[in-house]
Amino acid sequence: MRDMRVGPTGFHDVREANLGTVLRAVRTLAPCSRAAVAAATGLNKTTVSSLVADLIARGLLCETGESAERRVGRPGVMLALDGLTIAAIGIEVNVDYLSVVAVDLLERDLLTRHIAFDARSAGADACAHRIADAVRAVVADPALSHRSVIGLSVAVPGLVDSPGGIVTRAPNLAWRGTPLRSLLEELLHDAAPSPIPVLVDNDANLGAVAEYRGGHLARTGDLVYITGEVGIGAGLLMNGELLRGSAGFAGEIGHVRMVEDGPACGCGRRGCLEALAGIESILRAALPDRFPAGALTRADLADLVETAVDRAAAEEPTAVEALHTAGTWLGRGAAMLVNLVNPAAVVLGGYFVPLAPWLLPSCRSGVRELAFAPDAGGCFVETSSLGLSAAARGGAVAMVDALESGRLPLPPRQVDGVAAADEGAS
Amino acid sequence: MRDMRVGPTGFHDVREANLGTVLRAVRTLAPCSRAAVAAATGLNKTTVSSLVADLIARGLLCETGESAERRVGRPGVMLALDGLTIAAIGIEVNVDYLSVVAVDLLERDLLTRHIAFDARSAGADACAHRIADAVRAVVADPALSHRSVIGLSVAVPGLVDSPGGIVTRAPNLAWRGTPLRSLLEELLHDAAPSPIPVLVDNDANLGAVAEYRGGHLARTGDLVYITGEVGIGAGLLMNGELLRGSAGFAGEIGHVRMVEDGPACGCGRRGCLEALAGIESILRAALPDRFPAGALTRADLADLVETAVDRAAAEEPTAVEALHTAGTWLGRGAAMLVNLVNPAAVVLGGYFVPLAPWLLPSCRSGVRELAFAPDAGGCFVETSSLGLSAAARGGAVAMVDALESGRLPLPPRQVDGVAAADEGAS
Repeated sequence: MRDMRVGPTGFHDVREANLGTVLRAVRTLAPCSRAAVAAATGLNKTTVSSLVADLIARGLLCETGESAERRVGRPGVMLALDGLTIAAIGIEVNVDYLSVVAVDLLERDLLTRHIAFDARSAGADACAHRIADAVRAVVADPALSHRSVIGLSVAVPGLVDSPGGIVTRAPNLAWRGTPLRSLLEELLHDAAPSPIPVLVDNDANLGAVAEYRGGHLARTGDLVYITGEVGIGAGLLMNGELLRGSAGFAGEIGHVRMVEDGPACGCGRRGCLEALAGIESILRAALPDRFPAGALTRADLADLVETAVDRAAAEEPTAVEALHTAGTWLGRGAAMLVNLVNPAAVVLGGYFVPLAPWLLPSCRSGVRELAFAPDAGGCFVETSSLGLSAAARGGAVAMVDALESGRLPLPPRQVDGVAAADEGAS
Repeated sequence: MRDMRVGPTGFHDVREANLGTVLRAVRTLAPCSRAAVAAATGLNKTTVSSLVADLIARGLLCETGESAERRVGRPGVMLALDGLTIAAIGIEVNVDYLSVVAVDLLERDLLTRHIAFDARSAGADACAHRIADAVRAVVADPALSHRSVIGLSVAVPGLVDSPGGIVTRAPNLAWRGTPLRSLLEELLHDAAPSPIPVLVDNDANLGAVAEYRGGHLARTGDLVYITGEVGIGAGLLMNGELLRGSAGFAGEIGHVRMVEDGPACGCGRRGCLEALAGIESILRAALPDRFPAGALTRADLADLVETAVDRAAAEEPTAVEALHTAGTWLGRGAAMLVNLVNPAAVVLGGYFVPLAPWLLPSCRSGVRELAFAPDAGGCFVETSSLGLSAAARGGAVAMVDALESGRLPLPPRQVDGVAAADEGAS
């Protein structure tokens, strides 16, 4: 369809965009010469040299001695991504945990943390404080020593106004209109030498980014990632781009009504997919003895999932049946996605991963039953290899990605002998 | 998300792409000078002059005397799209009609035709012949005299492998694996001085293109167009781009299961939206006396729709109730789209347009009832202003659009005094 921009680049921020283009070229080609970057980008060599100098000063590129091409004589100076200077942090807040991931410019993990945390009982303010504490701990961690933190992403299970940094509605956290970005910016104003940019996004969206960038389905451009927590959400990647919709609220598969007069959902309606196949509803059905009066200690979810796995592995009929039923509902939900957006893959994440041996067979049957296209339009259903850290990891990666789109938050760094000598912890 | 191309343009077809870029610039800016095109595109003036000369030779641009800027002295030579030289043809084949539209480069209608035709009874081969006859009639029509036909689009209600030109599955036409493009290319090989490129696509996709380019919701980038025929399909435009999915089978909302053990659908399943709210099912419920033994003459659908409108307007309870119920189902289907892809607008097309006064209220209630986001994520439900010619029109426009993507099928034309003098019929 027609793009209203009439040229290959817009009128603004040409240099920033070109910096991003060069960074992207080096990621694709490294190790590579400046001449190779010029050839690949169409930018002239003088421009490339100037941009490269800027990117080296910002700690994003470095020179290496190696030459990719075996040439006679002196090897050319080659460029590579600088894996030693920056870090990006991603945090997921969910009903029963915080997940924390920091990555370097090559998207390699610098650290990962999983923190059991009853976010719902805590409330939004206390939760923001807990996130800020976690960020301070990461910034102070030896794994990040001498690194600049280029940004923090926070993944939230709910409707997120990402440009505004506001959580519009997260029923399972009981948040509504929570200005999470500004809360965190205030709490973190002195956490690092310069302010840390904060991005707030939906957990399923960032899970999809993580899958696309580093999961075992990496580079599958038409991919749906489904979160498996108390809530169920979908992150839709189409052609390698997140499908956000007009207000950023796409992917709410957890609140599609699957059946009239079904069980009550946290959103106030009945029969939503989340009420039929969310992890809390699965555990209630699979472990009825653990919920005698309907009470649930949310921070225990991980333990309860483990119990459900043990019982299903022991072929305990109630657990097996509950998982089979939930899998069928998940398959019917996935079939809607197959019919409406025709993904190449649907990836089940979160707590669905350990439960997959008992969920997947009926889930796949549900897709086959209800998909209109032959062979479900080529879609297969798989589990994530990224577990409960997917959304946090996707958030960290999204901050790295922002650099390549020309959003470069870093001023030229002060040359720092220690940082340059550091080998990079992991 | 990262694009694997590292530069602003790829390595191939740079000139073709630049021709498209210039064409697009002139569409946006016309009337405009070559200098303005150079400024807007970032291409240098010499290159622009050469590309413009080529586009003039191909009959796509022309020079005009007018100057947009009031300047002292001789007015500059201004460029505009050449509305006199080319034509693009779109045809929709549906269960009970062929719709034909031809447009010029400015996407103005040159002719429209509506032909009642029982496509299902005819079968695929006879249908291809009927389409070919229609194309020959258009090519010979005075409205297209002296024009080159740059291409033909055929819109089909079903799963279409558009790159292959094959209708994979169209249950309401009883087609399966129909190689429609090659059938038509063979039938049309001598219909014009040079072969006419043929594009086959899904009717809902092309309806969405037509809405985006020329409907009353034009330029709404996140838009879903829902066809209202025997079948129901959705064309999903996200960010102004068609969302096709990994195999091109996205948008099959007609075959999403709305209710277990619902009425039988043409696809062989039960409870599909199409079986609850497709035009045939609406007419059966609204006009029970007209279907005494379940028999249906498909070519009568337009008449029957008119009868249903008359009865509903006269507040005949059976008709009103049937439309209310179908509207509710449509709203529930639209709510799935709202939850999953969050469009800014859902547009009901085809026969839903005349029935809208009785469908829309319950449809909108259905959306409000089941949408998770506040205010349905800002989505409103409207009817199309393009009627039964939407998909045909969208197909013709898509051929024009292809020019601006650098797919220029025309060789430089022979200068033709008659064509240049022709004022363009409409």
